[in-house]
Amino acid sequence: MTTVETPVIEIDSLKLMERLDELGDTGRDSEGQLTRLAASDADKAGRDLVSTWMREAGLAVSIDAIGNIVGYWPALNDEAPLMIGSHIDTVINAGKYDGCYGVLSGLSVIEACQKAGFSPSRPIAVAVFTNEEGARYSPDMMGSLVYAGGLRLNEALASQADDGTTLGEELERISYAGDAVPGRVVPYAFLEVHIEQGPILEKDGTQIGAVENLQGISWQSVTISGVANHAGTTPIHMRHDAGLAAAKVITFLREYVTHSTGNSVATVGTLRFSPNAINVVPAVATFTVDLRDPDEMRLRSAEKALDDFLAELRTSDGVTITTERLARFEPVTFDEGIVQRIEQAAAGRGLSHQRMTSGAGHDAQMMSRICPSAMIFVPSKDGISHNPREHTDAEDLIAGANVLLDLVVGLTS
Amino acid sequence: MTTVETPVIEIDSLKLMERLDELGDTGRDSEGQLTRLAASDADKAGRDLVSTWMREAGLAVSIDAIGNIVGYWPALNDEAPLMIGSHIDTVINAGKYDGCYGVLSGLSVIEACQKAGFSPSRPIAVAVFTNEEGARYSPDMMGSLVYAGGLRLNEALASQADDGTTLGEELERISYAGDAVPGRVVPYAFLEVHIEQGPILEKDGTQIGAVENLQGISWQSVTISGVANHAGTTPIHMRHDAGLAAAKVITFLREYVTHSTGNSVATVGTLRFSPNAINVVPAVATFTVDLRDPDEMRLRSAEKALDDFLAELRTSDGVTITTERLARFEPVTFDEGIVQRIEQAAAGRGLSHQRMTSGAGHDAQMMSRICPSAMIFVPSKDGISHNPREHTDAEDLIAGANVLLDLVVGLTS
Repeated sequence: MTTVETPVIEIDSLKLMERLDELGDTGRDSEGQLTRLAASDADKAGRDLVSTWMREAGLAVSIDAIGNIVGYWPALNDEAPLMIGSHIDTVINAGKYDGCYGVLSGLSVIEACQKAGFSPSRPIAVAVFTNEEGARYSPDMMGSLVYAGGLRLNEALASQADDGTTLGEELERISYAGDAVPGRVVPYAFLEVHIEQGPILEKDGTQIGAVENLQGISWQSVTISGVANHAGTTPIHMRHDAGLAAAKVITFLREYVTHSTGNSVATVGTLRFSPNAINVVPAVATFTVDLRDPDEMRLRSAEKALDDFLAELRTSDGVTITTERLARFEPVTFDEGIVQRIEQAAAGRGLSHQRMTSGAGHDAQMMSRICPSAMIFVPSKDGISHNPREHTDAEDLIAGANVLLDLVVGLTS
Repeated sequence: MTTVETPVIEIDSLKLMERLDELGDTGRDSEGQLTRLAASDADKAGRDLVSTWMREAGLAVSIDAIGNIVGYWPALNDEAPLMIGSHIDTVINAGKYDGCYGVLSGLSVIEACQKAGFSPSRPIAVAVFTNEEGARYSPDMMGSLVYAGGLRLNEALASQADDGTTLGEELERISYAGDAVPGRVVPYAFLEVHIEQGPILEKDGTQIGAVENLQGISWQSVTISGVANHAGTTPIHMRHDAGLAAAKVITFLREYVTHSTGNSVATVGTLRFSPNAINVVPAVATFTVDLRDPDEMRLRSAEKALDDFLAELRTSDGVTITTERLARFEPVTFDEGIVQRIEQAAAGRGLSHQRMTSGAGHDAQMMSRICPSAMIFVPSKDGISHNPREHTDAEDLIAGANVLLDLVVGLTS
């Protein structure tokens, strides 16, 4: 038998769970719904709470011009910091783990290192990025995108909400328009632990996901125009049914991804008929197509296949079709070295683990533009997120934070 | 060579066209849109105009309790009258021919007979049925349905509009709640001339349609419930996509009717997704199915095929499905003898003609419950109806009215 080198440091699991609850209760409305939209009063309350905890842990708290909060734990060497981060803004009527788990785990990791007397070889920082959800201001993942240089500061600050406010005004109002220049400090590496927000880990019975890449996203709006005809008096062969053409696209997309070699997914989440009358053949069908694939060439192939199918439909169904690109992000490949370290850390703690793809967008994908990055996923019950029923067992949350801890120790030893 | 017996009587074509224009301008709003909803002020104005023309033609005008107007031209014999009829209520922003053409042609026919000194063997009546369109009160074809004994008077009068009024109140208000008992006079036969409201005659280059039957109609609402999942994080094989299932139903129905042996038509005119978000797999899809067929057994087969397909979907897609019947009318077969007379009359005037099926509902289908009935169709430009662009060339309108005239003369000689 060999002697297993067991980890000697553990995060304070009770404190992590208490903080998740306390932050999760910050911004609940009178009906008990949790909503901390970016730069709202509720967001300010959450930011104040997390900043206080950071200062209590002895971190130097810096606010930058887009409102990102970064808590630094200095080291003897003034090297580029290892950064851990996520966000604390939420969608409307949210769960309490999305984002917050990553931020508070980062803080727990630093506190565990401090308590153990660990002296890191470089500074360790915890970042709270502004407006990751994009539920109030567009685009989403804004704070990390600005930090990574992918969006100009002024453009981001000018983003206007449906309530008429701009993000810049609101950050000033809640006192989180800081002086630091976003992105001036380029991290040594970036780590994010997050609930999966999908069903795979739970379904597979795996405790830790080593996220090796993140799907590219292609969003389009498609408008098919046919001819509104009487549902009784128009023979089938004389119809130009926009609704039927839309249905053909939906079934085509499912067939396409089912037979694709990779992990392509395609979703038609919105659809509207016009005139939308029971006895009128639809004249116009407008719908969205959400295509995702972790491989850029496969994503382009899917887009091309859709284009080709729409071209066929124009002829076969006698309809006109216009498309509008709504969003396009290339897939992100995370740092292979860090992903391997995640697997090793999980294995070292006897946790089951698997490589996986993130289907959702995260701050880590923006940070990967400027430094080696990767993510750790923990299971989401029933894959549910952006919903009060979002849940991850405490055991899984603590396991993920401890894997992060081991990863941080390994990268700063 | 044989001597062709040419018709000696003609309708006053100029008068018919002038009246169509005058009635068509009755009820136009400030923006020029024609809207004469049943029992509205505009409907009253139209009724007053037509009643005046009936009285000017020497007809005895009777109003029954459901507001049907019947103008009688008495004959020496007090036999059951030959009735010609249609309606003058309209949908919102209507054309000027739907219904009005049938009523005013009937009046033209009587006037032509009078002018020619023709003495019919039985009374000839022109009927204006209340609320054929059903655009304000439900059900549609109400006046003729009550006349034919298919709906109780009190139930019809209690029908409530979205504006809170009942038909009974509104008929009283516009002074068209008459004393006559609907249906007391059972006609010898019923004839209705109408624009096709479909594209077939125009497409085939035919002037007269001898309408031999009328499609049965089956309306259902279908609700498919799946599971709302994240469009990025949920693998394809773990989805229960209600939108996809709905799309499969739409394409199935088209395939079914395309391969059916008869003239079945199927239309999904309305569709709604929930939550209807670009990055969420649809949890619920609600849509309507409009099935029509002139053959009752084939219509039942289509309903059965849909039921079977929905049962398959429940298993294959892991969704739940509920259906609700919204309307069901059996097909109507018109009187073969009258249909043959229409063909003969058209041929006698050298008009091209063809047998056809009515895809839309008409007062004649209700009257066919109590007396031999049939319809004459004339071409609709581009098949358009229920729309200001509804159009039939004057030549075709006059031809249809003259065929009606010959038919009436033949049936009352």
